[in-house]
Amino acid sequence: MTSRTAPELLSLLSAAEGGWVSGAEISRQLGVSRTAIWKHVMALRAQGYQVEAAPRRGYRLVFRPDLLTPEEVLAGLATRRLGRLVEYRETVGSTNDLAKEMARHGAPEGLLVLADQQTAGKGRLGRSWATPPGAAIAMSLVLRPDLAPHEAPRITLAAAVAVARAVREVAGLAAGIKWPNDVQVGGRKLCGILTEMEAEMDRIAFVVLGIGLNVTLRREQMDPAFRDTATSLALEGAAEVRRAALVQAILARFEGAYDHLLGGRFSVVLDQWRALSVTLGQAVRVLGLDGQVTVEGVAEAVDEEGALLVRDGAGEVHRVLSGEVSLRSS
Amino acid sequence: MTSRTAPELLSLLSAAEGGWVSGAEISRQLGVSRTAIWKHVMALRAQGYQVEAAPRRGYRLVFRPDLLTPEEVLAGLATRRLGRLVEYRETVGSTNDLAKEMARHGAPEGLLVLADQQTAGKGRLGRSWATPPGAAIAMSLVLRPDLAPHEAPRITLAAAVAVARAVREVAGLAAGIKWPNDVQVGGRKLCGILTEMEAEMDRIAFVVLGIGLNVTLRREQMDPAFRDTATSLALEGAAEVRRAALVQAILARFEGAYDHLLGGRFSVVLDQWRALSVTLGQAVRVLGLDGQVTVEGVAEAVDEEGALLVRDGAGEVHRVLSGEVSLRSS
Repeated sequence: MTSRTAPELLSLLSAAEGGWVSGAEISRQLGVSRTAIWKHVMALRAQGYQVEAAPRRGYRLVFRPDLLTPEEVLAGLATRRLGRLVEYRETVGSTNDLAKEMARHGAPEGLLVLADQQTAGKGRLGRSWATPPGAAIAMSLVLRPDLAPHEAPRITLAAAVAVARAVREVAGLAAGIKWPNDVQVGGRKLCGILTEMEAEMDRIAFVVLGIGLNVTLRREQMDPAFRDTATSLALEGAAEVRRAALVQAILARFEGAYDHLLGGRFSVVLDQWRALSVTLGQAVRVLGLDGQVTVEGVAEAVDEEGALLVRDGAGEVHRVLSGEVSLRSS
Repeated sequence: MTSRTAPELLSLLSAAEGGWVSGAEISRQLGVSRTAIWKHVMALRAQGYQVEAAPRRGYRLVFRPDLLTPEEVLAGLATRRLGRLVEYRETVGSTNDLAKEMARHGAPEGLLVLADQQTAGKGRLGRSWATPPGAAIAMSLVLRPDLAPHEAPRITLAAAVAVARAVREVAGLAAGIKWPNDVQVGGRKLCGILTEMEAEMDRIAFVVLGIGLNVTLRREQMDPAFRDTATSLALEGAAEVRRAALVQAILARFEGAYDHLLGGRFSVVLDQWRALSVTLGQAVRVLGLDGQVTVEGVAEAVDEEGALLVRDGAGEVHRVLSGEVSLRSS
């Protein structure tokens, strides 16, 4: 199956919303033979799609499984350069690890690694991240920005904005951002972002932006340690969401933010981040990477490099570059 | 050959300065059998050492080749934790690449990769770096500092200090540092430092500190593009230098600086850097990574993050984090 024809066939059948599309029409629009169409239909069926075929009427799509395959992600993808090349695995250890491996071997900016299941998914700071089959999105994007390493955290902020906006649009939930990059709904974590990079001191070689988002994950599928603090789209009452549609929305939103970032307009992204933040204005406690409390106070602002500015009880402002933030009111 | 006995035998024979050491004495000091000694001597001979053996007199070291083997580097190494584990290759693509690969698979802090020859040696910014057999030092050290990515450039400054001091001690040349990390003698580049890292946004996974130092390299062995600007210890008239001794001195000096850095005493390293700098106080031209001139002026200072502060003709101070500096007076 070619990488272009399959998504186009899917788009065409899908646009008919269950109605018939004639073989002649498909052949004309896709520029392929009737025999080629038949092969593509067989391939779709093998993946779990139900495509009816009838003489003179053509084809119609009766059931479309919720897959993260390249066909699904590319069918209707609105980006110009991110996610146009997709490496899909049914099962992978970690999409970030695979993306890093591919980046080391020259994978270009925009390569998207997707998996239906991660067996060794990773969160920040070496934590594990559960991705049971079919219940979540595990995506990793290879980026090659012309930035210095100290500017890389901006990418994470941009990604949090993109995910929160995509969740709002596609799932209709009031997603917000907890500094620096947890996307939350109702105070519970819906999505984690793990950004890794390889760099020289003054130049990034590549960044792998990893996004893990809980879609239909049930409470009993979660790590017991996180059951009280994590959630999924389904648990928050979202209507049924196609994962590929959410990936497409995240990619489109992120591409816009990334273009701002690279074009010297990071303040636009930062304004969007501030508008989505659940941290700013709150009383917070910051734990350092060693688990010790480093500062308590009011989260007043986030600066151009993504650092959180926290004013303590004595009126002194602390610039927080890393760590965990908990809201003291919650 | 065990990793401990071989360097100890070498130290013992070497300490006798060409004199005889009896088998009984070696056996006693190293705690190994006479048969084991014989096996070690045979192994040394296979590497190019000339070791004479005579009944009743014992052994004496007549010729010691200039090798970068673990035996040579470990014999008399003064460090506590850096370079105690050595991965030596006669030929390697790039010691930095091998060290990164080993670090990804869990190599501990302090692992030292050494090679006699690099076939695809790398400089900064994707440039190539020539390492013909036997003529240079190519060393890469795995570090796992508890630092944020934006603090990593400090490691490069510390390494430049270590190399400049080691060259002064071992080779007796007046080595200086051109910002940020070229070690020079007489205005020509003797040593390049390539620091690479893998990191999350707020935490370094590992750093690979690569040092390439020209020892006996002749002008015709250099890349034609660098013949006017590069040099070697031999070209600068240094007395014969054992490469392993220089590696030992670099490791010892760097361990001291690294301890200061991790212990919150980076200002000590910075003072040493300033004392060795050939850039401060000079009229400089800074080229950005794109090759364009970004600022011209006088290099006034280097700050706590290693940035160069350049005052331009209008009196404005520019903070330079990356790029190439050329001295306008030279």
